[in-house]
Amino acid sequence: MKTVILASLLLGTSALAQTTPQAREAAFDKSISAPEQMGWLKSLSSAPNHVGAAHNKANALWMLDQYKSWGWDARIEEFEVLYPTPLSTTLELLGPVTVKLGGQEPAIPQDATSANLKDALPPYVAFQGDGDVTGDVVYVNYGLPADYEALARRGISVKGKIALARYGGGWRGLKPKLAQEQGAIGSLIYSDPANDGYATADVYPDGGARPDTGVQRGSVADMTTYPGDPGTPGYGSVKGAKRIDRKDSVTVMKIPTLPISYRDATQILRAMGGPIAPENFRGALPFSYHTGGDGKIKLRLAVQSEWSLKPVYNVIAVMKGKDRPDEWVVRGNHHDGWVFGAADPLSGNVAMLSEAKALGQLAKSGWRPSRTIVYASWDAEEPMLLGSTEWAETHEAELKAKAIIYINTDGNGRGFLSAEGSHQYQHLVNQVAADVTDPQTGASVADRLRAKRRADAFDGARVDADDLKAAESGGDMPIGALGSGSDYSAFLQHVGVPSLNIGFGGEGESDGSYHSIYDSYDHFVRFDDPGLAYGAALSKVVGRVVMRVADAPTPPVRFGDLAATVRTYLSEVRELIDTRRKQDDKRAGLLSGNAFALASDPRAPVAAPPAKASTPVIELAALENAVARLETAAKAFDAALAAKGAGLDTGRRARLNAALLGIDQALLIPEGLPGRGWYKHALYAPGRFTGYGAKTLPGVREAVEERRFADANAYAGHTAAAITRLAERLDVATAIVG
Amino acid sequence: MKTVILASLLLGTSALAQTTPQAREAAFDKSISAPEQMGWLKSLSSAPNHVGAAHNKANALWMLDQYKSWGWDARIEEFEVLYPTPLSTTLELLGPVTVKLGGQEPAIPQDATSANLKDALPPYVAFQGDGDVTGDVVYVNYGLPADYEALARRGISVKGKIALARYGGGWRGLKPKLAQEQGAIGSLIYSDPANDGYATADVYPDGGARPDTGVQRGSVADMTTYPGDPGTPGYGSVKGAKRIDRKDSVTVMKIPTLPISYRDATQILRAMGGPIAPENFRGALPFSYHTGGDGKIKLRLAVQSEWSLKPVYNVIAVMKGKDRPDEWVVRGNHHDGWVFGAADPLSGNVAMLSEAKALGQLAKSGWRPSRTIVYASWDAEEPMLLGSTEWAETHEAELKAKAIIYINTDGNGRGFLSAEGSHQYQHLVNQVAADVTDPQTGASVADRLRAKRRADAFDGARVDADDLKAAESGGDMPIGALGSGSDYSAFLQHVGVPSLNIGFGGEGESDGSYHSIYDSYDHFVRFDDPGLAYGAALSKVVGRVVMRVADAPTPPVRFGDLAATVRTYLSEVRELIDTRRKQDDKRAGLLSGNAFALASDPRAPVAAPPAKASTPVIELAALENAVARLETAAKAFDAALAAKGAGLDTGRRARLNAALLGIDQALLIPEGLPGRGWYKHALYAPGRFTGYGAKTLPGVREAVEERRFADANAYAGHTAAAITRLAERLDVATAIVG
Repeated sequence: MKTVILASLLLGTSALAQTTPQAREAAFDKSISAPEQMGWLKSLSSAPNHVGAAHNKANALWMLDQYKSWGWDARIEEFEVLYPTPLSTTLELLGPVTVKLGGQEPAIPQDATSANLKDALPPYVAFQGDGDVTGDVVYVNYGLPADYEALARRGISVKGKIALARYGGGWRGLKPKLAQEQGAIGSLIYSDPANDGYATADVYPDGGARPDTGVQRGSVADMTTYPGDPGTPGYGSVKGAKRIDRKDSVTVMKIPTLPISYRDATQILRAMGGPIAPENFRGALPFSYHTGGDGKIKLRLAVQSEWSLKPVYNVIAVMKGKDRPDEWVVRGNHHDGWVFGAADPLSGNVAMLSEAKALGQLAKSGWRPSRTIVYASWDAEEPMLLGSTEWAETHEAELKAKAIIYINTDGNGRGFLSAEGSHQYQHLVNQVAADVTDPQTGASVADRLRAKRRADAFDGARVDADDLKAAESGGDMPIGALGSGSDYSAFLQHVGVPSLNIGFGGEGESDGSYHSIYDSYDHFVRFDDPGLAYGAALSKVVGRVVMRVADAPTPPVRFGDLAATVRTYLSEVRELIDTRRKQDDKRAGLLSGNAFALASDPRAPVAAPPAKASTPVIELAALENAVARLETAAKAFDAALAAKGAGLDTGRRARLNAALLGIDQALLIPEGLPGRGWYKHALYAPGRFTGYGAKTLPGVREAVEERRFADANAYAGHTAAAITRLAERLDVATAIVG
Repeated sequence: MKTVILASLLLGTSALAQTTPQAREAAFDKSISAPEQMGWLKSLSSAPNHVGAAHNKANALWMLDQYKSWGWDARIEEFEVLYPTPLSTTLELLGPVTVKLGGQEPAIPQDATSANLKDALPPYVAFQGDGDVTGDVVYVNYGLPADYEALARRGISVKGKIALARYGGGWRGLKPKLAQEQGAIGSLIYSDPANDGYATADVYPDGGARPDTGVQRGSVADMTTYPGDPGTPGYGSVKGAKRIDRKDSVTVMKIPTLPISYRDATQILRAMGGPIAPENFRGALPFSYHTGGDGKIKLRLAVQSEWSLKPVYNVIAVMKGKDRPDEWVVRGNHHDGWVFGAADPLSGNVAMLSEAKALGQLAKSGWRPSRTIVYASWDAEEPMLLGSTEWAETHEAELKAKAIIYINTDGNGRGFLSAEGSHQYQHLVNQVAADVTDPQTGASVADRLRAKRRADAFDGARVDADDLKAAESGGDMPIGALGSGSDYSAFLQHVGVPSLNIGFGGEGESDGSYHSIYDSYDHFVRFDDPGLAYGAALSKVVGRVVMRVADAPTPPVRFGDLAATVRTYLSEVRELIDTRRKQDDKRAGLLSGNAFALASDPRAPVAAPPAKASTPVIELAALENAVARLETAAKAFDAALAAKGAGLDTGRRARLNAALLGIDQALLIPEGLPGRGWYKHALYAPGRFTGYGAKTLPGVREAVEERRFADANAYAGHTAAAITRLAERLDVATAIVG
């Protein structure tokens, strides 16, 4: 029975692959198998998969074989990166009796792999600063600038103390970075149950939420300055590459840092003295949170690592384009995990493997993509996007010359389609979302997303106003802006390759296993994406994006969407400046009227915030003109392509495609962003104080936020120049269309 | 030394009382003693003070003696009210081993009176329905209509089960009332630590927040229909009054109900099954909240009470006016508590005693108020405003003929001035607030309040927009509208006497002891108002209001403030209607597009809300015209009074005052509000689904909210008529001024 079906499918594929794109996509879909993804996921996540782990290398070699067997031209591309492997992690609550905290997470009987921890990394954070410190503790909430301001107004400082932060509110690595800037001698980060524990769902293994023993590992290398190997900033860490010394690497933290469970955090927080913490500091643990810092308790925190070079195994598979072999569609997902990594990253990785297999089957049936397709399974994403960054840095010139788009996925789950990226591809994403069926409802994933936004808004949940408007109108749903936190960063923000990051989520519970030993096959198939229905859906979405970009005569871009999005960013920046100025004036008025002192509770005093000069008017005229120029150019280009794009002759087509190739590089600011020249994109960057979260028009916006007003004026100019360059290149392309 | 000072003070008082109002108020202030209030508070709260308790009666008799010794014409006015005293309260978690829950709260060594519980009431709620039921439990969040709608969309019903609600979100009594309407057989109410426990402060005795053993007693008689004795609706329950039978009293609940601690609630909630509760149901207990209702657990809940008539001892003290003895300024605070009642109500009661003593001293030094002043220490407020309501009902005719104003206080605490009431007195409250010094900062209490609103808004807290605008402009701070929950209700909403309710708060922690045995002297002086500094401040505020109204040639009203406030209420009602209509249309669109079904998570399904017809246009023209008419009349009246009020001759003055006497009765709607005729005020009522919280223009607003559109149209007319009557009476008064 099974054989018969397969044979008919293969016949079908063979016949259809030669005909229409619609038929080809239908054939592609038939090759996608959720049960097969489940098998791969179980095997790939059966042992620890961190950088340097034997099983992670074995996975790379197994994937290499798969790609080859599916007809891809595949190889492993190796790099050599600085990688700290923890030798010892110590956390002790000192007192009459020393209480030992920390250490490996315990096995849970209902979770098969949790008993298989022989090669597993203990809870730690990569690229913290080794050391052995003893001191008092201050609870700093999320450990972000506003939290330190709140503490300062209450007379609390972390200077000479250990800063205990909770996960959330901003990227993990900002917590030790800001703690050390504030003078802390050590840093702890715990998972409060308010954020991913019992306040969100039943805890594992009853539900998917984080149990009190769960710990979130992660990297704290200063991604906001540059990702990749700290020793090779801006160039590939190929074997033998020149390396800067670890102590000179600005992205390696200087103070010892450990992540801990909320079981451990409870022992510390409960024992702390000092005033009651401000209201927004309070999590879901069953007692009052205090700020500490009064010397009531003392902790010893010590971390020792082996800082050696480790091999990185990127699996790179190429399917050469028949018409435009030197135009590349690059698609990636990483394969390393902190421990087993079933959800993060293997759920996305198996979806990618399904696509590669399906494309291979199409190829075997006679189809060949017009452009070259490159599939990449990155290693060493977790410690700081090492595999993808070193690869992109190494191949920077070639990528600049050839890459049309980079399409990324990472951990995937049950729920709703989410996409972020370069907005000229927003319409393509929406077209694809209209053509893929949601496995739970049978509606298109686009329609389900629109329904979700509308129903949520009706039920009183916060929904982004632009999202809601789009959902109600039935038009294209906006895609988000890319910050960082996965492998697109080097492509988009350093090299200037337009990028997309795509995934499903919102109904799974993988937040509760994130970066812990419980991110396992058992957790995934019970709570995150049972049956991998959404793994299959992801393959169908991304496969379509890959095929449509690879096969389109000219890449399916719509620059009007980009221009309209940049217009909203500019409006936001204008509003930010106004809001800041009003707030500055308000602060000055309150200070001169002594209002903060009068409002303060003498039994829980809160001092006035420090005085600040008024935010000045920023020179935005050039930027305003550049955005208008882009709107005009984009409108003309989109109109020309719509009117005449289909009928271009070969010569004109080639010149048009050549004009569009690398067009996003116009948006790179040559000197990069202030204080972090690695990040060059004028529109998108990870926020200096958000991390994963994007900042758009970052050179201007962050300068205003951080009161670097000279930078704000200078980067308004740089950003205007970049946007103008894009408009000029679009004009050239429009002229070619004729 | 002490004698010398006292002598000079008395001399000063004697000299000053004869001269200016300013000097008289300064002399009044000198008579206010916080240490004396502490002494009274300690003694009054030394034993249980509920209705029927020996100590509560002793307090009344002691106060009677005090008033007399201060020169007041005082007496005890007794009523006889239905009062349920619990005989047995039983709560058991059934299972292989029965777990007994409930019972009296335990003593805490640091709290002296908590060991003195011989005569104390156990945790219970007055006017629940006796019974003995066994059944499954459903967690209903706050137990308000929106919560039952959320449960219904998840397929959960309380029919035949026990509804477990948490305190908060709306008035206590709504919880059993709605539960019985939904078919529940019993009702439990617990104090979630999110609302007044460790999520708000350290728990008692380390801090003032509710300990896990603390239970909030209270009344669940259906206040929203009528307060007072359930057996004598609308008339005084004097000895021998005709009574309706308990089973015919609509304000007595039909199902057994008990309040419980979060220690007990934890045992129930942790054991419950069913789906995860909706996000807004989740409190601060350290586990996932489930809805229950799946039969996993079984509770037995049984309450038996003695339903007998009990005496109520109102202490009434009169100081006759020298010029206008038949114009009364009535001022009250209750003296009964659920147990010791240090914060609620004795902290307000001792502030009132200080005023009475100070007024007595002024009187002894030769001053006499122009109008008659009546001080009342009410009994039996806790079971449902019994003492004040029965008194006001008994004296309804006399109050209608004579009462200028009723000024209420209740429990008081450290912090900021808060006032609610009839808006023609808003300016008076602001004038007084400008003249009283905040004990912690030395600023005026008005300036401290403005500073608080501005600083809070700057720091990102939610601040009412009108409050903030007033605070920023330095103008009069708005006073709130009166709902219910203290003794002003009968005066304002039934009899039509303009009322004020005044107190300090916001920095104390008496929420944590509210209606428990821990509402004690020890708790109060440690956490609520150490040294009773704000007790003294309250005396100074209320004393000024009393004296200024009593002595003013014409009551210090400004009807423009009332008119402007009513204008904002009308705008809110218009906006409510528009918002409702848009929401109805949105719901219809989402239903027809199947959006709720598409948005629903199949593993945690949420059904679509039921279809509803669109909210129609409501006829508001008459109301609009009436408000405009009131604005004109109020403006003319205020202008006339400002221009010529000081120079009126005796005859004109008498006619003017006669015209103003009882003017608020114009605002009473003769038939009362829909379904609750006891409530007659056109502007202010306790919300049918908020309880303590006020609804303004209630006849219209609540009809729109509850989709009683015929009522909405009818009451727009009734309300317009009432407002027009007031405008007409103001015109008469204006004409008298000339």
